[in-house]
Amino acid sequence: MIGMMVELTVTPGNAATFERLFAAQAAAVRASEPGNRLYELFRSRTLADSYTLIEIYEDEAALAAHRASSHMAANRPLTAPLLAAPPVMHMFDVLPHAL
Amino acid sequence: MIGMMVELTVTPGNAATFERLFAAQAAAVRASEPGNRLYELFRSRTLADSYTLIEIYEDEAALAAHRASSHMAANRPLTAPLLAAPPVMHMFDVLPHAL
Repeated sequence: MIGMMVELTVTPGNAATFERLFAAQAAAVRASEPGNRLYELFRSRTLADSYTLIEIYEDEAALAAHRASSHMAANRPLTAPLLAAPPVMHMFDVLPHAL
Repeated sequence: MIGMMVELTVTPGNAATFERLFAAQAAAVRASEPGNRLYELFRSRTLADSYTLIEIYEDEAALAAHRASSHMAANRPLTAPLLAAPPVMHMFDVLPHAL
């Protein structure tokens, strides 16, 4: 499985709007992407307007489907203007449950 | 919900042992902690022997139950010697699904 951590910084004053837009985006991901296993937004307790999006995908095909999805295409133009800097993406392999 | 990211660095040559021990620990967490929502180990694709443990707990009581659990008490002495440095812990609030 593929793990992703995406660091997001929102411009001051836009946290509530960003969170509302994200919640709708996440609901669409969970409802229409069978290959997505996790899509959670972590809000920092130490840095204002700072979030980390944690994502898990079954495989590369599931990640590609996410990136090409209509709901992401519809939501990017709404969230992108609220970001103070480009997202910083970190890729991981998720340890299988059985070893 | 409470989100945690724990940065873990394993001493060279011990990754396979660490992963096997962790898989057993994670199985116990998933089987016996109703308040745990996520317990996944992300293996870095860029840094050798570098992992991030992603955890989600329903509330402080669930996190306290995890920390006091017999399976964590049994496993810490096995994994701790394999770490190259103390774990680095980051705490978050997890965005609710519905806003």
